[in-house]
Amino acid sequence: MKATIERATLLKGLSHVQSVVERRNTIPILSNVLLEATAEGQLRLMATDLDLQINESVAAAVDQPGATTVSAHTLFDIARKLPEGAQVSITAADGRMAIVAGRARFSLGTLPRDDFPVIAEGELPHQFELPVETLRQIIDKTRFAISTEETRYYLNGIFLHTAEGVLKAAATDGHRLARVTVDQPQGAEGMPDVIVPRKCIAELRKLLDEVDGSVGVSLSGTKIRFDLGQAILTSKLIDGTFPDYSRVIPTANDKILKLDPKSFMEGVDRVSTIATEKTRAVKMALDRDKITLSVTSPENGTAAEEVPGEYVSLPFEIGFNSRYLLDILGQIDTDTVEVHLADAAAPTLIRENDKSPALYVLMPMRV
Amino acid sequence: MKATIERATLLKGLSHVQSVVERRNTIPILSNVLLEATAEGQLRLMATDLDLQINESVAAAVDQPGATTVSAHTLFDIARKLPEGAQVSITAADGRMAIVAGRARFSLGTLPRDDFPVIAEGELPHQFELPVETLRQIIDKTRFAISTEETRYYLNGIFLHTAEGVLKAAATDGHRLARVTVDQPQGAEGMPDVIVPRKCIAELRKLLDEVDGSVGVSLSGTKIRFDLGQAILTSKLIDGTFPDYSRVIPTANDKILKLDPKSFMEGVDRVSTIATEKTRAVKMALDRDKITLSVTSPENGTAAEEVPGEYVSLPFEIGFNSRYLLDILGQIDTDTVEVHLADAAAPTLIRENDKSPALYVLMPMRV
Repeated sequence: MKATIERATLLKGLSHVQSVVERRNTIPILSNVLLEATAEGQLRLMATDLDLQINESVAAAVDQPGATTVSAHTLFDIARKLPEGAQVSITAADGRMAIVAGRARFSLGTLPRDDFPVIAEGELPHQFELPVETLRQIIDKTRFAISTEETRYYLNGIFLHTAEGVLKAAATDGHRLARVTVDQPQGAEGMPDVIVPRKCIAELRKLLDEVDGSVGVSLSGTKIRFDLGQAILTSKLIDGTFPDYSRVIPTANDKILKLDPKSFMEGVDRVSTIATEKTRAVKMALDRDKITLSVTSPENGTAAEEVPGEYVSLPFEIGFNSRYLLDILGQIDTDTVEVHLADAAAPTLIRENDKSPALYVLMPMRV
Repeated sequence: MKATIERATLLKGLSHVQSVVERRNTIPILSNVLLEATAEGQLRLMATDLDLQINESVAAAVDQPGATTVSAHTLFDIARKLPEGAQVSITAADGRMAIVAGRARFSLGTLPRDDFPVIAEGELPHQFELPVETLRQIIDKTRFAISTEETRYYLNGIFLHTAEGVLKAAATDGHRLARVTVDQPQGAEGMPDVIVPRKCIAELRKLLDEVDGSVGVSLSGTKIRFDLGQAILTSKLIDGTFPDYSRVIPTANDKILKLDPKSFMEGVDRVSTIATEKTRAVKMALDRDKITLSVTSPENGTAAEEVPGEYVSLPFEIGFNSRYLLDILGQIDTDTVEVHLADAAAPTLIRENDKSPALYVLMPMRV
């Protein structure tokens, strides 16, 4: 294998694939990137952690087609440090890979390409396209609610499913729920309900910043593929059952509070300054058109702030985890946010308005 | 105590003092900042870790002079989150401090000002001024060589001493030495040799970015004070004997190598990509006007790069810790760097030229 490639092109490709590669691996070849120089003038890069695989193709001048695998992070670090504009020559033979650029030359150990594990996609019968902007919105407005509890593995991703002509994406950690509803894309009808793992979501989200247009999504009951043109992500799906989350979305909360999300968020952020790691609760005291946020910490003291809001129901008090509240408010893009409350112990619904594709459910805390 | 202060003014003052306060303290009052509102319309802030003390004065509208102490980090976080342009009212009474700004109000527990430990400066008979630029240069060109080994506490700072009409600053960790020589300022004659602790240096360096003109330095054999106008730093000195470092500065190294520091640095950085934490050594093979840098790592492979340089002595090879070499080269501001070598085991001298105020000594490594 022998190819020459521009440093910037190599660096960009490697920056995508190296981030899939875990820093510590018990199986040595999982630290490597598969490089394949094709007769068609492409350098194909592939990396995997056995659950998630990324394939990327970049333009290269190929003298001799071939393939090998080499440490992904080392190659990435080398490409990063090479001078701008350098032409990088890559030659692989006899268990070594030589990298030459300008006056610098490197020799790295390789492992055979045939030992490199490839995720068998199988058939992916359900295929549709999603605009980049829609996919970005689905991820941004739900991913913060993904659970990190490994024992609840079926919550460690975003749940995608179709229902009544729409595509729904949901994530929850049991304390809060985020759901986005978008028009069902053509080809999504009849697709199975799937849970896309957190790491796949994170890598996909990074790649979305670099593309325009739309992303091809193909899936079966066990695998999903995102085709972003130059890069393709293939991931195993989480093999579990996402809980029937629709039951926790309140429909009859009759105490409606409307606020300016910016001053609400700043108020929550300020009063929570004195909250400790243990006591993250912020209390909201609702009175007619007057909302008082407060935090009491035995260690640090007390904080309170009034925020303007529209509220005409009976006065009462309710507590929320301030961080969870801030996560949700950070996703509100409109001038008004609606908070639908029932009582101090009931799930609370938060949304921009009745037209908004996203809604959030937050469990209260005792305060 | 009752005072009103602009949020930006309070924030700036607190940002300086809070960084002296350690995150964890076994003595509760050391987590606090002393606030003193004076009849002259000043709010004085003081913080200490018992070795280093910072005093800062900011303008405030004082209704009722007085003093108290309150958690430095909490107050800083509050000031940070208050809206820009807010007027902050501070009132202390009965073991509590109330902070009110706009619609937000906080109540924090206080500890009595009389319990706050103040470093007794004693007499500081030696006083001189140093231009900010000079002090910045002294610190930047030496601090990286300060030892972090706690057992060698006498190396945990910058050594300042006068000799033959100059002021010298030196730092070493036993592997490398950095020394800067500047004109002896008026008043420094007869001053004792002192070791200024690392933390004092770090806080001083941050403050230097915000001032112009010159800094007043006052010292005795045990304390040093830096007067930066609005802020005053007082530190205990390290009670130990700095080794006679002049003996390790080579004077007869006769193999002279001259290089472009930029391409030298980039070359060292590139070949050290494949060095591991354990083997940081980069080998320099010197031949007539040809320098080859190389790294061999049993795990990762090999790297080599030729860098242009002037060299006319006998060919030989020498190894250095790549990180130490990069630290030194990062301080070279000229177009040429001189490396004075003797043999593969002898201390090597590095400097810009024979006029440069800074010089560096680096111990070689076996390669």
